[in-house]
Amino acid sequence: MYTIDLNSDLAESFGAYHIGMDEEILKYITSANLACGFHASDPVVMKKAVENCKAAGVAIGAHPGFPDLQGFGRRNMQIPPEEVKAMVMYQVGALDAFCRANHLTMQHIKPHGALYNMAGKDYALARSVCEAVAEVNPELILVAQAGSQLQKAAEELHLPVAKEVFADRAYEEDGSLVARGKPGAMITEEEEAIRRVIGMILEGKTRAITGKEIPMQADTVCVHGDGEKALLFVKRLREAFAEENITVKRLQTR
Amino acid sequence: MYTIDLNSDLAESFGAYHIGMDEEILKYITSANLACGFHASDPVVMKKAVENCKAAGVAIGAHPGFPDLQGFGRRNMQIPPEEVKAMVMYQVGALDAFCRANHLTMQHIKPHGALYNMAGKDYALARSVCEAVAEVNPELILVAQAGSQLQKAAEELHLPVAKEVFADRAYEEDGSLVARGKPGAMITEEEEAIRRVIGMILEGKTRAITGKEIPMQADTVCVHGDGEKALLFVKRLREAFAEENITVKRLQTR
Amino acid sequence: MYTIDLNSDLAESFGAYHIGMDEEILKYITSANLACGFHASDPVVMKKAVENCKAAGVAIGAHPGFPDLQGFGRRNMQIPPEEVKAMVMYQVGALDAFCRANHLTMQHIKPHGALYNMAGKDYALARSVCEAVAEVNPELILVAQAGSQLQKAAEELHLPVAKEVFADRAYEEDGSLVARGKPGAMITEEEEAIRRVIGMILEGKTRAITGKEIPMQADTVCVHGDGEKALLFVKRLREAFAEENITVKRLQTR
Amino acid sequence: MYTIDLNSDLAESFGAYHIGMDEEILKYITSANLACGFHASDPVVMKKAVENCKAAGVAIGAHPGFPDLQGFGRRNMQIPPEEVKAMVMYQVGALDAFCRANHLTMQHIKPHGALYNMAGKDYALARSVCEAVAEVNPELILVAQAGSQLQKAAEELHLPVAKEVFADRAYEEDGSLVARGKPGAMITEEEEAIRRVIGMILEGKTRAITGKEIPMQADTVCVHGDGEKALLFVKRLREAFAEENITVKRLQTR
Repeated sequence: MYTIDLNSDLAESFGAYHIGMDEEILKYITSANLACGFHASDPVVMKKAVENCKAAGVAIGAHPGFPDLQGFGRRNMQIPPEEVKAMVMYQVGALDAFCRANHLTMQHIKPHGALYNMAGKDYALARSVCEAVAEVNPELILVAQAGSQLQKAAEELHLPVAKEVFADRAYEEDGSLVARGKPGAMITEEEEAIRRVIGMILEGKTRAITGKEIPMQADTVCVHGDGEKALLFVKRLREAFAEENITVKRLQTR
Repeated sequence: MYTIDLNSDLAESFGAYHIGMDEEILKYITSANLACGFHASDPVVMKKAVENCKAAGVAIGAHPGFPDLQGFGRRNMQIPPEEVKAMVMYQVGALDAFCRANHLTMQHIKPHGALYNMAGKDYALARSVCEAVAEVNPELILVAQAGSQLQKAAEELHLPVAKEVFADRAYEEDGSLVARGKPGAMITEEEEAIRRVIGMILEGKTRAITGKEIPMQADTVCVHGDGEKALLFVKRLREAFAEENITVKRLQTR
Repeated sequence: MYTIDLNSDLAESFGAYHIGMDEEILKYITSANLACGFHASDPVVMKKAVENCKAAGVAIGAHPGFPDLQGFGRRNMQIPPEEVKAMVMYQVGALDAFCRANHLTMQHIKPHGALYNMAGKDYALARSVCEAVAEVNPELILVAQAGSQLQKAAEELHLPVAKEVFADRAYEEDGSLVARGKPGAMITEEEEAIRRVIGMILEGKTRAITGKEIPMQADTVCVHGDGEKALLFVKRLREAFAEENITVKRLQTR
Repeated sequence: MYTIDLNSDLAESFGAYHIGMDEEILKYITSANLACGFHASDPVVMKKAVENCKAAGVAIGAHPGFPDLQGFGRRNMQIPPEEVKAMVMYQVGALDAFCRANHLTMQHIKPHGALYNMAGKDYALARSVCEAVAEVNPELILVAQAGSQLQKAAEELHLPVAKEVFADRAYEEDGSLVARGKPGAMITEEEEAIRRVIGMILEGKTRAITGKEIPMQADTVCVHGDGEKALLFVKRLREAFAEENITVKRLQTR
């Protein structure tokens, strides 16, 4: 039996500022990555998000980012790995307070935005993120792109890893994402995106932008909840999964 | 046998900004209130502070404050109690990550500055602080001024409470602090300050500014580590305790 | 000939966070209060807003607030007046950079949210706001509620003042706003709100919540651009003004 | 007659956090670079700093940085040049408010830390900084390292430029600073540092780390005020200047 997890970034509102259709997307996903107050979110938003996840039966993960609210954590920042480690520990702990208050166990961690991208390529940074997790809660599943430095560092530290794929992105032959600027980087046709994800799940491979077939294991698919179109895509993805007898369920420790 | 705890606010540095003689004061205190990143501190400072407390054998407590770095958490802010609750949960959790990474158990919580003062007088605010503690970690000892709304709310929620006294402040007949502006509010003479604290510990009472004797139980004395003079006072206080056979040790749950 | 100014709060977005239908409301107002980065906005948002105001022919004013992004400047903060003065100077200067770059002259200043409310009642705070304006740019028109401490302090410092009225709020006999919690505080019926504003403009008076007629001079009406309903109300207000031969134009120095 | 300007970074305190011996260093310098609230400083600190500069007869310049208080503006951040432009405009305007209130004319601008370094090498970033200056106040003198992209962009936009040299740093043959990590990067011997600066002023050249003589024009020397040792160095530097008949005076537009 094939299973897949659907993850999405939530709890990105801040004070009077609202982002995301959190309550809608919670109906369709199995894992929520909750912003932790550095690149987005605040304690009030996080508390409510954890309560909403509990009510919806969605597993909770920390989504730590750079301390850059103005840039939404999407701007590269050169921060010494040792400091990033402390920042990740802090954010994981902060979110965990709300989990504990709700008698929930945090399931996973997925770095956000620029931290995810930089740590994917920079071993020292990836190592610092994984050390933070190993020291605070080594049972957290690290969500990382297959083949990334994050995956490598997590495995070295014996953290459980879930490999994340993107439905709307093309891949290079080495399994990395095609840079957004390049032609063909985005998979804009929905049916094609769905077929590709299903191929990854059932066959463990996909076709790179060059046309070459490459291995691509999928434990979790990243989906978005920031608009009606995004929500519709998730619904269609779930329908397609059902037709293929792919069960959507939260992450399994391997 | 009489015992007393000495607590001090630590981890108040931020980035390139340095405040406090943390490593010096750690030699003399038994409980450290660590700022949690809202009114002061950052993850790097907090991580180091927890490691330093561990090395010094000093018990760790959370010192949550208002989200006001510029005002160092000393400015009154009108924030709905429900939001303050979330802020306290967040800060306690954040600090706890560093405790867990160091295999330490957090001992206590003491609100900072304006939050301490406002919650001391406003029951709804005090209740929200105590609910945060009760939900995240009901074993934390709440450090509060005797007779304050914080003490009241903590007891209602069955949180352990430690009563805090101030060596350098005069008291009104109702046990509240004499407002800083009023003549006689500060006890500036060191020997008198020491005699007063010892009286509170041994006899459970002190003399109000009016001259009337009032009950004043002391579980912990707040001391400062922000200058040579402050350090010297703590040394003298400890010497006086030794002469009176008062044992300085971390908080006891009652 | 009767004239009136319509003002609205703009430039309240921040980074990835979007608030307000700025480009829509610009079609209907004559004066824009631009957030200055403390309670909302950022330099990118402010720069764009000033350019948009220029294109729309809308006069620009500073809308300084408390340093409280999380609370959107709506939370009361106890800050010494001398410090508030510096904060207002800073924010006015920051906005002015964009005006100068666009060869525009800033028209007015209107404090935001909690600062507007607190300075409306607290003379020392009102005085500090007005001193900031007098020292940085004494030609700015201070937008204030009639009868408020802000108006009083502005007049003492010989700043030009524009009296602001609210279409959707009821007034006490002394000209202050009925507190939001009280029954009848909000004027929810649109036609009534429009009639009341027109009465203020044409007759210089209105009916207090007690039924008593009170003087109420209107130089500018505060309108909102945060939703379709708000936009529709502004359109209807303008149509009603046209029928009454009330000209909508930017503030006049008196 | 030879002249030189001495510049130093001031107004770097923030709220309760104190950095720098501003009042001491003001006795020895002729130009002050004032932090503008993004990487350091706050409105209260800036207001006081401008007043202190006025009293000391020291020229004022803006010292804008990245929005990174925790990193003191020393961490590289990838921000689109168009956004950096808005940030520089904002900071220059904010500081200018205090200058205007004191009837002072701002003299110069010098980007801070990571912004100075990145814009020194990245033309697009340098251009955005200079465009900000050109649009807000084209009379500001841009303080830049000789040969940097900042100098190049400033000249293209016809901004006056002052070339800055560092007494305590070695230079590569192309006039760039030897990277801090490399052996010999820092000139630690004070007499040598002083001799080198005097050589730059009198002869317009210096010796690169390779031993080769290179041109090095000096309009201003960056000195520090963050400790007793730094202050002593500035005093000795001024004494040496006096012996060589080099006049210390604020920047001259060339």
